[in-house]
Amino acid sequence: MNSNMEKPYVVGIDIGGTNTVFGIVDARGSIVAINSIKTGAYAQADEYVDAVCKNLLPLIEANGGVDKIKGIGIGAPNGNYYSGTIEFAPNLPWKGIIPLAKMFEERLGIPTTLTNDANAAAIGEMTYGAARGMKDFIMITLGTGVGSGIVINGQMVYGHDGFAGELGHVIMRRENGRLCGCGRKGCLETYCSATGVARTAREFLTASTEPSLLRAIPAEEITSKDVYDAAVKGDTLAMNIFNFTGTILGEALVDFIAFSSPEAIVLFGGLAKSGKYIFDPIQKAIDANILPIYKGKTKLLMSELKDSDAAVLGASALGWEVK
Amino acid sequence: MNSNMEKPYVVGIDIGGTNTVFGIVDARGSIVAINSIKTGAYAQADEYVDAVCKNLLPLIEANGGVDKIKGIGIGAPNGNYYSGTIEFAPNLPWKGIIPLAKMFEERLGIPTTLTNDANAAAIGEMTYGAARGMKDFIMITLGTGVGSGIVINGQMVYGHDGFAGELGHVIMRRENGRLCGCGRKGCLETYCSATGVARTAREFLTASTEPSLLRAIPAEEITSKDVYDAAVKGDTLAMNIFNFTGTILGEALVDFIAFSSPEAIVLFGGLAKSGKYIFDPIQKAIDANILPIYKGKTKLLMSELKDSDAAVLGASALGWEVK
Repeated sequence: MNSNMEKPYVVGIDIGGTNTVFGIVDARGSIVAINSIKTGAYAQADEYVDAVCKNLLPLIEANGGVDKIKGIGIGAPNGNYYSGTIEFAPNLPWKGIIPLAKMFEERLGIPTTLTNDANAAAIGEMTYGAARGMKDFIMITLGTGVGSGIVINGQMVYGHDGFAGELGHVIMRRENGRLCGCGRKGCLETYCSATGVARTAREFLTASTEPSLLRAIPAEEITSKDVYDAAVKGDTLAMNIFNFTGTILGEALVDFIAFSSPEAIVLFGGLAKSGKYIFDPIQKAIDANILPIYKGKTKLLMSELKDSDAAVLGASALGWEVK
Repeated sequence: MNSNMEKPYVVGIDIGGTNTVFGIVDARGSIVAINSIKTGAYAQADEYVDAVCKNLLPLIEANGGVDKIKGIGIGAPNGNYYSGTIEFAPNLPWKGIIPLAKMFEERLGIPTTLTNDANAAAIGEMTYGAARGMKDFIMITLGTGVGSGIVINGQMVYGHDGFAGELGHVIMRRENGRLCGCGRKGCLETYCSATGVARTAREFLTASTEPSLLRAIPAEEITSKDVYDAAVKGDTLAMNIFNFTGTILGEALVDFIAFSSPEAIVLFGGLAKSGKYIFDPIQKAIDANILPIYKGKTKLLMSELKDSDAAVLGASALGWEVK
């Protein structure tokens, strides 16, 4: 554990499209203080950083002051680890390239490191969660989109430009694939994100007249949580939606295993909490499609980080790594 | 450069299904002595290792003896870096798990490291070739099959079990994919290996009555070299075969880039020498399919290692890494 008696804490800041959550974390992964602001309330990045600092400083002061903080870790969409910038993030209010790490460093005088949100989750899982002690694993975050953080030889994979690990955008259907937010067709995330599951629900409901609890919900309002609730009640159509989703995800994981042969794949996010409804078809698709030399070698795990804390914990874990 | 004044040489052994080539290499990547034996002539691994040693030792003696050799590197199909074994290699005469590295070490008293042939090629490219100085690149070997060696953060990717990097077996066609030697369907290597090109040629010749120079060759005897020769002469059908092959390979490379965002992808092997006929459609498919954040960032390069020497050079480069 990257403990440090003189600087016993790190700060984690998780920047989401809706909320920014920040907290102070100790070396055991306990959150000792936490707060949040609305990301979208600040049209200028400067105002936003000021607002985070204004709300974060009282937490820091209450825990011994700036001198007790070893580093700040930030998880953000389109975050670039090498430059400490966020670059052209479609779901954040600030356009272009924003030097966020530098902005926090200048205001707080604490070394700050930034990476994308899925990488932060992977570092959190490696530091405090299901991947403790693993040198080779892949974290797949199943949320509004599908993100990934890849660890090889005990190191995060950032690639030559800081943007490696966009596994939500490998192509799973090369013909008649679903249109993706990235402008291309057939990306994994169009099928296996929470929104992908809702999309599948609407397709399945339209394609048949099979009775389903989901027909009681207006089609455009169906969420992956609704599909889960219906599946739990034994709804066949809902279970078929999970089978479809899990099969495509399992097929994708098989290709990822051929790349880095990880010890485990860790699933994170709301959809991952659908338990056996999603895990069983994923495992079945892996077993049916895996290249023989990898058979039975890679564990499929669920994140061990508490959902409400995971993003801040993950970001904070980066804070231990600052030089 | 991993030079060493007292031990100025390494030995590279490239084990192929047909020939085993071995040579003595200096720190600049010059082959100072080389020889070969027929791999298939030895039904027992013991006899085989004896035969290699018997033919290799005179080369070593002529260059100052065993004391001048820093290490031996072996490239072999299904080679496992961690254990120094080859495991269930379908194209070699010896079945099961063979502790080849240990067998050579015991006979010659020289530290020996083994990896699979595509990884050896990648190490050779990094040590002596087109990837000198690169920390993140992917080597794709286009031969009878499609192999790969992946380098991330300056390190070979072996995975938790030593078998990472089977990129010839990612699935490119999930419906009606071609049957692969691995028992699955739609693998990259069924389309983009030399044998995949020949298979495409037969398919294209059957599917149309378009005139082609290739029709002069019995269908079962067509090779990728024949397709190249026809393309050079302006044969449209041959060029379409390369377009088809390059498009699928380019689509695959786009997914690989989303994984590790490499500085370069280096193509190696006979098919890679088809020059613009294969490079142009690959680059076109990359440009048409790449995720926007990666656009224009990853170089597509041809191996700089001489074909006849590359395998031995690649294997030998491992010899510098021995402890």
